[in-house]
Amino acid sequence: MKLKNDIFLRACKREPVERTPIWIMRQAGRYLPEYRAVREKADFLTMCKTPELASEVTIQPVDILGVDAAIIFSDILVIPEAMGMHLEMHEGKGPIFPDPIRKESDFKNLRDISPEKDLKYVLDAVSLTKKELRQRVPLIGFSGSPWTLLTYMVEGRGSKNFSFVKKMIYNEPQLAHKILDKISRAVSDYLSAKIESGVNAIQIFDTWGGILSQEDFYEFSLKYIAKVISNIKRKDEPVIVFAKGVHYGLEKIVESGADVIGLDWTMDLGSVRNILKNKAALQGNMDPSVLYASEDKIKNEAKKVLSSYGKGSGHIFNLGHGILPDIDPERAKALVRFVKEESMKFNSGE
Amino acid sequence: MKLKNDIFLRACKREPVERTPIWIMRQAGRYLPEYRAVREKADFLTMCKTPELASEVTIQPVDILGVDAAIIFSDILVIPEAMGMHLEMHEGKGPIFPDPIRKESDFKNLRDISPEKDLKYVLDAVSLTKKELRQRVPLIGFSGSPWTLLTYMVEGRGSKNFSFVKKMIYNEPQLAHKILDKISRAVSDYLSAKIESGVNAIQIFDTWGGILSQEDFYEFSLKYIAKVISNIKRKDEPVIVFAKGVHYGLEKIVESGADVIGLDWTMDLGSVRNILKNKAALQGNMDPSVLYASEDKIKNEAKKVLSSYGKGSGHIFNLGHGILPDIDPERAKALVRFVKEESMKFNSGE
Repeated sequence: MKLKNDIFLRACKREPVERTPIWIMRQAGRYLPEYRAVREKADFLTMCKTPELASEVTIQPVDILGVDAAIIFSDILVIPEAMGMHLEMHEGKGPIFPDPIRKESDFKNLRDISPEKDLKYVLDAVSLTKKELRQRVPLIGFSGSPWTLLTYMVEGRGSKNFSFVKKMIYNEPQLAHKILDKISRAVSDYLSAKIESGVNAIQIFDTWGGILSQEDFYEFSLKYIAKVISNIKRKDEPVIVFAKGVHYGLEKIVESGADVIGLDWTMDLGSVRNILKNKAALQGNMDPSVLYASEDKIKNEAKKVLSSYGKGSGHIFNLGHGILPDIDPERAKALVRFVKEESMKFNSGE
Repeated sequence: MKLKNDIFLRACKREPVERTPIWIMRQAGRYLPEYRAVREKADFLTMCKTPELASEVTIQPVDILGVDAAIIFSDILVIPEAMGMHLEMHEGKGPIFPDPIRKESDFKNLRDISPEKDLKYVLDAVSLTKKELRQRVPLIGFSGSPWTLLTYMVEGRGSKNFSFVKKMIYNEPQLAHKILDKISRAVSDYLSAKIESGVNAIQIFDTWGGILSQEDFYEFSLKYIAKVISNIKRKDEPVIVFAKGVHYGLEKIVESGADVIGLDWTMDLGSVRNILKNKAALQGNMDPSVLYASEDKIKNEAKKVLSSYGKGSGHIFNLGHGILPDIDPERAKALVRFVKEESMKFNSGE
């Protein structure tokens, strides 16, 4: 059976589209009353681990907002947990690993994962969601980048200065590389299994790539993103790389095998498109807090994002970061509606 | 009387230098036991408001590290406090304004400042420090940018998403501009008074410029930085602008009147130098956490920073952000020593 709406996938591959597709990072989230209703029945990790619940909140934004893609509800930290780290979710304080990886002897506690066994609940959620979506829109699977996962695994909790992981890369680079290698294998196997279970595209979040100097980003982050991309078993599922704060070397991210580059709102879509010479599609990049504004202002800003990219395929509309938890869902709906309408006009000129 | 060591000022003006000058952001800080000894006797705001104490910690890094410039110990939030906002410093939680500016009616509580009266303690600290420094090195005065001060004044405390200030610029831009105008006048008068009291250079910290989209940065931040620079009464005191996370439009920052551009560690000094075509000096930009590493690694990284800029004047060595509180002072000393030695060799080739 074929997808009824594959405009997102076509834009990822820079194939002709009749309008610009849109989805929203963290679209299955707290700003939706329907999500909060599910969340009241179960804590965050239970939601991740219960395919029916994960599937339900994954599909909500397709029904409510009318986005052009769903993204499977999960968390990037399920991989370190599957590798043997004890994970605690603290309301308000975020996720915590009480026993972070700090030294060589901690490394031996990290095991290789078998996604079909250790992360079966995610794969089941994917299969169930694919079934429930009835081919309406594509389903995106995601993972944190190896570097971003390492950051959480070493820091153990939210951090301002990332002292522990920086100490590791500067003082024990060989240990950092050894762990990154192991994480890369886990991420590759996990994403391959997700594709096997039915996801139509992959997004790799490098949330903490931007805390590194350029040279360190290439050595400790991009190298492993490239490894993962080349290891994923896929047919023609596109890979999106979103490296927040990495404003330089986007050509190198494309060379690493990314089909789509996600951009935060400090970037200029048009300039990046010029630099990359249409070698990759671009995803983004409206400031998430624009959704606090009036509908008129939202439309105005959305129009600017569309114009900044310009005509032609290869743009997936999104925010430059996840939607904020206190956004009025009506504003998000208005954005989706407007981008669909406006980009139709905008693209018909071609 | 003339400055004995004016190499920092010469580099700011891109005049010939025999080696690269160095100072360190937040060099008067908690990593120094000598600073902590003073801090034990008085809380942070009392230190800011007691010229003898402010002066003592300002001079410490000149004596201990041998840096080429001192920067007057103070806090960017003394301006909003002088404008009438009640400021509380909470150990661990950072500064808090219990009554933040959120709406039109809050605006009337903000008063114009007279630095000679309302911020006399800073000016006294400057005069005393100039005297105690005995012309050994130049003294830098600083301020937050109007936008960065607005951010604190509206949020009231540390923020992750900056929701309140973003709501203000999107929903009540005219109110934001009105407050920014008032802050700009205060900042200009304050910096003029600091120069009058003896500082030899100015640094404007735009800590939160990087949370804005490019267009918003120009409208809500850079416009007011330009206003401040053109309003400061100065002879030939250079102005350094450090807009953290603003990786684009550096030419526009130079056009705003900045003599020196401060760069964070995600930037490449050499590329920026090429883009700016030597129209401004550059300051930065080693990752502060490199100081966690061994002396060899620190030297290696410092060498890379020097090479990245290349030969010729116009570079002031610094970290890409403030020195971290848990750095071993011996590492900071080693860095200063090494940059002085190495850049001498490095520059003698010209």
